[in-house]
Amino acid sequence: MSLKNDLILRAARGGKTERTPVWIMRQAGRILPEYRAVRDRLSGFKELVKTPELAAEVTIQPVDILGVDAAIIFSDILVIPEAMGLTYEMVEKKGPYFPQTIHSQSDLLKIETGDPDKRNYVYKAIEITKNKLDGRVPIIGFAGAPWTIFSYMVEGGGSKTFSKARRLLYTNAAMADQLLGMITESTIGYLKHQIQAGAEMVQIFDSWAGILPPDHYTRFGLEYISKICDAISEVPVTVFAKGAWWAMEEINTLSCQTVGLDWNMNPKKAKRKLPNKTLQGNLDPCVFYADDHSIKTEVKKMLHAFEGHPHIANLGHGIYPDTDPEKVKYFVECVKELSHQR
Amino acid sequence: MSLKNDLILRAARGGKTERTPVWIMRQAGRILPEYRAVRDRLSGFKELVKTPELAAEVTIQPVDILGVDAAIIFSDILVIPEAMGLTYEMVEKKGPYFPQTIHSQSDLLKIETGDPDKRNYVYKAIEITKNKLDGRVPIIGFAGAPWTIFSYMVEGGGSKTFSKARRLLYTNAAMADQLLGMITESTIGYLKHQIQAGAEMVQIFDSWAGILPPDHYTRFGLEYISKICDAISEVPVTVFAKGAWWAMEEINTLSCQTVGLDWNMNPKKAKRKLPNKTLQGNLDPCVFYADDHSIKTEVKKMLHAFEGHPHIANLGHGIYPDTDPEKVKYFVECVKELSHQR
Repeated sequence: MSLKNDLILRAARGGKTERTPVWIMRQAGRILPEYRAVRDRLSGFKELVKTPELAAEVTIQPVDILGVDAAIIFSDILVIPEAMGLTYEMVEKKGPYFPQTIHSQSDLLKIETGDPDKRNYVYKAIEITKNKLDGRVPIIGFAGAPWTIFSYMVEGGGSKTFSKARRLLYTNAAMADQLLGMITESTIGYLKHQIQAGAEMVQIFDSWAGILPPDHYTRFGLEYISKICDAISEVPVTVFAKGAWWAMEEINTLSCQTVGLDWNMNPKKAKRKLPNKTLQGNLDPCVFYADDHSIKTEVKKMLHAFEGHPHIANLGHGIYPDTDPEKVKYFVECVKELSHQR
Repeated sequence: MSLKNDLILRAARGGKTERTPVWIMRQAGRILPEYRAVRDRLSGFKELVKTPELAAEVTIQPVDILGVDAAIIFSDILVIPEAMGLTYEMVEKKGPYFPQTIHSQSDLLKIETGDPDKRNYVYKAIEITKNKLDGRVPIIGFAGAPWTIFSYMVEGGGSKTFSKARRLLYTNAAMADQLLGMITESTIGYLKHQIQAGAEMVQIFDSWAGILPPDHYTRFGLEYISKICDAISEVPVTVFAKGAWWAMEEINTLSCQTVGLDWNMNPKKAKRKLPNKTLQGNLDPCVFYADDHSIKTEVKKMLHAFEGHPHIANLGHGIYPDTDPEKVKYFVECVKELSHQR
């Protein structure tokens, strides 16, 4: 079936579009009462991730309710470590917890690159979404970047300092490379299956990029992201290396089409440093706490700052769960209206 | 009494020194068994902060044990909100917790700029330290930057997103300015008293600088740091705006002498963007997990990167509590030995 709205795909490929396309990181989730209604019927977040019909339902909600130009499949970056052999629990209000973690060479024997079939529930959810969307907007697939997934597999959860994961880079680079290599291989297979199932664009989230010293990020972060970008030529790829402001020149050399910017990053500088890339972002998610007038002003500033460069409007980070959906609708309307006039 | 080792003060003022001075953020603390022995005799962290004789003892420990070129007074940035009327508890392994927080204009009535005398225990600790050090090395005083203190007073503790504090900047800028102004006034008085008591240098820690969008950091962060810098002319001032890599040009215009860099920041770029400032930093604290050979290599790289610019060696962040003190001693020796040869 052909897409009725392919704005985001054209923008990702660097083409001119009649207006700026817009979607929102974490748009499918807790901000919507309709999502919470589905979630409340289940035992937890992971049951929702693993129930394709319901994952598809919450994936489509923001398209209907917020009017965004893309659906991002409702899932979790941690399906990769789980498929590799490390199960996790999602602890309410605390985040993920892995009872088993990786610290030594022998721990690597506990895991495997991962049978792609173990993530069938994700592909199934994409297929159902595709059917139900009926070409209204494209579907974005995603995965965590190898460094971020590595961090979870070593730390066993979130961390302020990530010092266990970072310690390994100094003390056992060979083993770190081996694990990063396994994650990369697993991720490539995973993304390819998502594309086969119907994802028309994929995003790689490197949530913990900003914690690494620049030389380590080149060596242990971008090295592996680059392998993923090189392996995916079927659809446009977006790289979002949160906090890695210093790496823009290097990111410009990756074979991805779009680069996500967080809200600290200056769009004008990014346009200069990433001349080959479509830019995505980068409104501060806290703008949604302000009144409509301020939201409109901030959208204007954002559109103006990205002017003259292929741009996909978004936040500079996942939306905060206590955001009022009415504000988000207004943001989407502002982007549509104001970018159309330009 | 005259100082026997004033390397750090001369470096801070931009002078040439026979070798690079070195100290370590959080050098007085959990990494030293000698510190833990003192701490274990007490009810908690806050009792140690409020007992001048013991605070002085742990302040001097790293000078004796690690061989650093300065003592930083053992205290806490949260003595300011406490003196302003918000008491806090230090929860073991979790961090600070404020039962009362500031959210509205009327909450401002609960607090006051703060009688400097309420922090007498800090000044007393500096006096004792000064006496005991007998001029061996200078004493560094410190305070949190207004934005960081504001965050704690609004959030009531640490946060992943700081969305309550950041929300206020969008929804009630006038009130935010009022609170930031009160914190600034309180901090200026506090630092001046520390200097009177014997601090020969002061550092302003803006731990949460990196969370703000650049325009907000200019408006709500640097605006107030600038007032503090302008008010303190007695001793050299160091500004450490963690994560605010985009603000280097603006920070170069502050009337401070030294600028702290975190481990993401490129010293070569910093030298260009901060031509008027001594630079402090910026080894990755995770380097201490590596073997001696790697530590030496990293120190060499750091010294080389800062070459030709006034430099105070340090980490790019507070040292992690599980660091082996032997590694830290080795780091200090490496800086002394390698910078002497240059």
